[in-house]
Amino acid sequence: MSDDARFMALALSLGRRGQGAVWPNPAVGCVIVQQGRIVGRGWTQPGGRPHAEPQALRQAGPAAQGATVYVTLEPCAHTGKTPPCADALVAAKPARVVIACTDSDPRVSGKGIAILRAAGIIVDVGVLEDEARADHLGFFLRVDEGRPMVTLKLASSFDGRIATASGESQWITAPPARRVVHAMRSRHDAVMVGGGTVRQDDPSLTVRDLGTTRQPTRIAVSNGLDIPLNGTLARTANDISLILCHGPKAPAELIETWESLGATLISCTPKMGQIDADDMLQQLGRHGLTRIFCEGGGGLAATLLKADLVDQLVGFTAGLALGADGLPAIAPLQLPRLAQAPRFTLTETSRIGPDLLHIWARGNTPA
Amino acid sequence: MSDDARFMALALSLGRRGQGAVWPNPAVGCVIVQQGRIVGRGWTQPGGRPHAEPQALRQAGPAAQGATVYVTLEPCAHTGKTPPCADALVAAKPARVVIACTDSDPRVSGKGIAILRAAGIIVDVGVLEDEARADHLGFFLRVDEGRPMVTLKLASSFDGRIATASGESQWITAPPARRVVHAMRSRHDAVMVGGGTVRQDDPSLTVRDLGTTRQPTRIAVSNGLDIPLNGTLARTANDISLILCHGPKAPAELIETWESLGATLISCTPKMGQIDADDMLQQLGRHGLTRIFCEGGGGLAATLLKADLVDQLVGFTAGLALGADGLPAIAPLQLPRLAQAPRFTLTETSRIGPDLLHIWARGNTPA
Repeated sequence: MSDDARFMALALSLGRRGQGAVWPNPAVGCVIVQQGRIVGRGWTQPGGRPHAEPQALRQAGPAAQGATVYVTLEPCAHTGKTPPCADALVAAKPARVVIACTDSDPRVSGKGIAILRAAGIIVDVGVLEDEARADHLGFFLRVDEGRPMVTLKLASSFDGRIATASGESQWITAPPARRVVHAMRSRHDAVMVGGGTVRQDDPSLTVRDLGTTRQPTRIAVSNGLDIPLNGTLARTANDISLILCHGPKAPAELIETWESLGATLISCTPKMGQIDADDMLQQLGRHGLTRIFCEGGGGLAATLLKADLVDQLVGFTAGLALGADGLPAIAPLQLPRLAQAPRFTLTETSRIGPDLLHIWARGNTPA
Repeated sequence: MSDDARFMALALSLGRRGQGAVWPNPAVGCVIVQQGRIVGRGWTQPGGRPHAEPQALRQAGPAAQGATVYVTLEPCAHTGKTPPCADALVAAKPARVVIACTDSDPRVSGKGIAILRAAGIIVDVGVLEDEARADHLGFFLRVDEGRPMVTLKLASSFDGRIATASGESQWITAPPARRVVHAMRSRHDAVMVGGGTVRQDDPSLTVRDLGTTRQPTRIAVSNGLDIPLNGTLARTANDISLILCHGPKAPAELIETWESLGATLISCTPKMGQIDADDMLQQLGRHGLTRIFCEGGGGLAATLLKADLVDQLVGFTAGLALGADGLPAIAPLQLPRLAQAPRFTLTETSRIGPDLLHIWARGNTPA
């Protein structure tokens, strides 16, 4: 690995610290290197500012002059809630800026680089670009397509079942896998489940036992707003952000009740008697969300897969068989042909306690 | 790893060369080491003899005197189709014999060791014993319980489906996984499928493209002997060993027809309208088989799992979703409680082309 790649890998790992906490902003990382020595490190702070570059520049101080700056996304060129990072970089007089990937935001794309080059700074673009695009996927999708990225997590038996025929589902995977799930939740802006899962499990959908104070937004999807008013979500709606996505026929008095409990209600357009997943994600994107962690159940998983809206599949497989009478992880997809099945590419596997973790990215295997 | 473990690991890997080709004998490996140098290597030859030890002793010649012999199973002490290996070792005058595990066969257990010790040879037992017991599992199960070991292979989508709703199953996994399956077939004594898979796929159940000439026995399980008489199995029954396991109500004229085609018919006792899996495996054990590779379908997989007869699960997971309307890898198990689900322990994972291979051993995770 070259020095450039090594320092950019560090910047990417710093940037990931902000994932889940900076939406609608991107979680950027920045490293400043002066004669082989790291003199500044920064990442987008909770709430989305300060940005990574001013953090790192402040740490470097005068040592930034003549240094190389590694940043995981093209520095911003427009004045939003903060002054443009490109201007801050020009003022610090580095010799060179290495950028992992350019911004999709039309207000920024190419402009940050132009400002730096106009000031005589050498700019190199594309170091660890694929990794950076994967890290910033939620930000890019929201800018480009108006929707957040979706990670679909399925924790199932060896044969893809998430509960026994009688509905028993606690616990299929072991405590180590459940801890990893909480860490994954904390790196997303929101945790999402379907109404059936809420009625079955009465989940809190919070991040627990990680020493974290910030909680991701919680989203429950129920066409008829059939979420128990005496459950954990209702009880905690005022304390921890809760969004309920429902269809147009949800009873008005239920909508009012949930609003009075503190929930945010999103009315989605219908599609074949269900909620239109495209419209739902567009509305969640307008809400500012960039990264959604969907934990099922099988109906919501199928809806998202059929609409081709799942960007990452996270599988936890436990070493037990539940049989075809168990509850399936993914509801019927009505595929006309095998060739039409949604396809994913394996990116990572590991053992988590007794369970197997496997992560897949959207799209066909590269040839 | 100690020298003893290193040489025993080599002996184990040599022994595995015989797997699938030596039944009902165990696939033993042997390494002879004189002053740190390997002077003899041997493994059980196809058909079950010569045994590993005489092979290695012949290679070592006079260098076996004063040497250390590593053997993966206690040397035999009885005269069967070959003279006892324990006597051959005594005659070669090694200083020490290291044995991975003792034999379960009551004709042998402890007797081979006693013969060696009586001749003044130092005998150490238990080096890499767990690995050796796993390699010899089929041999031990047949001796101890009268049945072969069963490996259950399931190649499925991310959500545990082996075909679309319309029955389309070729191909869920990619060519590299299919090549690994052929290598796995060749290391088992027999390949087994249910009648539904035969009717659906018309498989040949042979090992292909591996440069091998020996073929494992093929087993099809069909209560009513409902196997197409115009299919590949019928056409090849005379050339490659074929066993058909059926229930007592299979039509006599079908039994005669299949016998005239060259198949071996095994009539199994019934159990709840199905074939009793325990009885079937006992009869296959009496036939001499020690290692069976079962490739489904879902019905046979469920029958074996319900009877707690699956020793190893081999999963190939492809990066696609087929949904709950797809064909399940394991038919209903009618589990009363999650706690009663058959459980397995992860032993190995790897990527095979775009697919994920995961291997699990029977039994609960050790604490």
